Amino acid sequence: MAIDPSRGKMHLGAFIHPTGNHIAAWLHPEAQIDAGQNFRHYCQLAQMAEAAKFDMMFLADAVAVRDGKQEALSRWPQYMAYFEPVTLLSGVAAVTEHIGVVSTATTSYNEPYNVARKFASLDLISGGRAGWNVVTSANLSEAFNFGREAHYEHGERYDRAEEFFDVVKGLWDSWEDDAFIRDRSTGRYYDPAKLHALNHKGEHFSVRGPLNVARSPQGHPVIFQAGASEPGKELAARTAEGVFVAGYTLEGAQAFYADLKGRMPKYGRDPDHLKVMPGLNAIAGRTEKEAREKHAYLQSLIHHAVGLEVLSNALAGFDLEGLDPDGPLPPDVYDIVPKGSTSAFRNVTRWAKEENLTIRQLYMRFAGARGQRTLVGSGSQIADNMAEWFLNRGVDGFLIQPSHVPGGLKDFIDHVVPELQERGLFRTDYEGTTLRDNLGLPKPVNRWAARESVA
Amino acid sequence: MAIDPSRGKMHLGAFIHPTGNHIAAWLHPEAQIDAGQNFRHYCQLAQMAEAAKFDMMFLADAVAVRDGKQEALSRWPQYMAYFEPVTLLSGVAAVTEHIGVVSTATTSYNEPYNVARKFASLDLISGGRAGWNVVTSANLSEAFNFGREAHYEHGERYDRAEEFFDVVKGLWDSWEDDAFIRDRSTGRYYDPAKLHALNHKGEHFSVRGPLNVARSPQGHPVIFQAGASEPGKELAARTAEGVFVAGYTLEGAQAFYADLKGRMPKYGRDPDHLKVMPGLNAIAGRTEKEAREKHAYLQSLIHHAVGLEVLSNALAGFDLEGLDPDGPLPPDVYDIVPKGSTSAFRNVTRWAKEENLTIRQLYMRFAGARGQRTLVGSGSQIADNMAEWFLNRGVDGFLIQPSHVPGGLKDFIDHVVPELQERGLFRTDYEGTTLRDNLGLPKPVNRWAARESVA
Repeated sequence: MAIDPSRGKMHLGAFIHPTGNHIAAWLHPEAQIDAGQNFRHYCQLAQMAEAAKFDMMFLADAVAVRDGKQEALSRWPQYMAYFEPVTLLSGVAAVTEHIGVVSTATTSYNEPYNVARKFASLDLISGGRAGWNVVTSANLSEAFNFGREAHYEHGERYDRAEEFFDVVKGLWDSWEDDAFIRDRSTGRYYDPAKLHALNHKGEHFSVRGPLNVARSPQGHPVIFQAGASEPGKELAARTAEGVFVAGYTLEGAQAFYADLKGRMPKYGRDPDHLKVMPGLNAIAGRTEKEAREKHAYLQSLIHHAVGLEVLSNALAGFDLEGLDPDGPLPPDVYDIVPKGSTSAFRNVTRWAKEENLTIRQLYMRFAGARGQRTLVGSGSQIADNMAEWFLNRGVDGFLIQPSHVPGGLKDFIDHVVPELQERGLFRTDYEGTTLRDNLGLPKPVNRWAARESVA
Repeated sequence: MAIDPSRGKMHLGAFIHPTGNHIAAWLHPEAQIDAGQNFRHYCQLAQMAEAAKFDMMFLADAVAVRDGKQEALSRWPQYMAYFEPVTLLSGVAAVTEHIGVVSTATTSYNEPYNVARKFASLDLISGGRAGWNVVTSANLSEAFNFGREAHYEHGERYDRAEEFFDVVKGLWDSWEDDAFIRDRSTGRYYDPAKLHALNHKGEHFSVRGPLNVARSPQGHPVIFQAGASEPGKELAARTAEGVFVAGYTLEGAQAFYADLKGRMPKYGRDPDHLKVMPGLNAIAGRTEKEAREKHAYLQSLIHHAVGLEVLSNALAGFDLEGLDPDGPLPPDVYDIVPKGSTSAFRNVTRWAKEENLTIRQLYMRFAGARGQRTLVGSGSQIADNMAEWFLNRGVDGFLIQPSHVPGGLKDFIDHVVPELQERGLFRTDYEGTTLRDNLGLPKPVNRWAARESVA
């Protein structure tokens, strides 16, 4: 495939799930078994990813344990007990120098002043490497921890998220970049004309400001989003600088990529200032055969109770216990009208119908990576596929989700990264000192400075 | 003074204010001028304090900038722009091994689930060195950042704080200490019988739980409080493990000490399991003369506008601008009935009356350390005073507030710590690996494990 030099280089994030992304990751001998309680493990992963020149380490978050049958959860412990990610990443930032540190935080069960503070602090602590993945919470289990009997409906969640985001962004402009004079000879520490209250009064929030954290090295931490819904895409086009969205086919990815970037000019934004980086499960070996064996081994570790639970989650909670695992889905599954995320439901029922899969076959296909796109192959095979998606403008990069950690991350770094580097598709050294520098994103201009320069 | 061996050793915390505790700290050449934005500065301070065997580094917090006249604030920038402290301390924990990391967080403008998570994470990250100073917010400037037009009244604040604290403590018991089996041979990661929902439904909060963070190395982070009011003392007797309360005279400190510890047995608590550690401004030199010169130099840096602002704050906001600084307080000051904290008002007006002090003399006495107890002297003189308070059961230790940092902390470490160590009053090595070990505090028993052992 010919390299189009205008494409530049792709971006890579390491999306670290506790013990790894595969549902049976913790059972793999090359997974850190106590990952959710082991700080040094995360430090080592970040240092490995930094040595390989990854743009960032990314951590997901939720404000509740997962709900479900204990028989399955106790055998599938991901996201049951783990670190609050911003606290964790600030520790990780202390022992790394280049890699971005990006975390999810929900707009549904936080206050914008607190979120603005902690991400600005993380950006200061890391010397300009912080990112915030802005999400809304749709899980009832999270609502129950914050005094609510029901979660916010989709429209209200997005309304609140938009206002929340605008408040946070406004607070990050409280201090202009050159507000601090720190002149001992005049006794003036800051210029009062460069400190600004926000005075926001909206439907969901009333926040006076100013923020009590200085403007951070990146101006604002880098903003990520994952929403694929209509309001999600519109919010991303207006505000996001990175988007993590699942893609299954190159054609689908290209359509999403063009759609999203096409919405940006009406907000006065350059389409290059948003990086599309879908998740990618890459299981890499020295050879295709070795990779297939690695994948088959992980698949062999899936427990029946866990497989059923994951499949049931995809089928809007339909209880599959007691059914013949080697028989088909019962017909009443097809009568369900799923709420919330529907893509898993659609995929699973389509496979079941079109390919006549049994319950066991379904969960073996779906459970390992919950239906996410998975590449299994040699470094060169995986690099081929990544190059195809990148060069054909389906993506600007990938969020690599190692099946198990550290083992799966090491495999990707050993086998795939050198292939990408040799082809000129991935950096061999960091471009700059901040996450914005490395992602090729501009530093946002402070709204007050912008106003002054116009006046 | 004879050493009473049953007193054991005193405890020391380093209370690090941005640039230092003295109001003119940032003007001192031995202060880190950009402290509020300099992460490595805090790492160095923590490492210095750790080398000197301090029990902990302590950081204050507020969720607003200070309000006031910009002419004064821009010359007195403490707590205008600084790090969110838990984020900061988790970075500090990554580069230290022994010192405790303790932060304030308010119960007024947070959610208990979020606070429980971040302190449990900090305890995991630090390997059992975290502490939480539980406070309520009384400032209108904080209310304005959280959608409120008024702050909570004192009673409501304390009601909310008590319930908030109980929820957080309950969430910290979600997982029993031995909940995680992590047995690859049976495929069981945790024992479902050792995971517990809280199911709290109270007046202010409704929180189902469980917490999605494992039980931390200390069981609970160490609990600190500062309240000196009647409900504050009662809450401390029931729940606190360390108390930071201002003391001015040994007699007053002894009375407070006996009062507080005397309230503990009715809650089934051992009085030794609460450490009274008031703040102490110690300005130390090689000689008394050198220390006096250091203090005088800092005092000489106080700007008139700043002195007036601090004095005005102590006088319930009474505007002193335009008055003759070398004249007395105007008589109508004495008619004010101050709300909230009244001790500063009482002290300042008493000094003005009894000693006929001018406005300038008043602020020169009050402003530097806002009326807190200040010791100026050689290492041996300061150690004498600390020993007297400790041996006579006025305190269990001190929260040292260096006038400026790093300079003032270095002075204390160079001149006072060796004196205390030589007298057997302070450790020469850490007793254990956790903050609880070093403070001599027991690890709390998980409520569910306690129930089982009774049953």
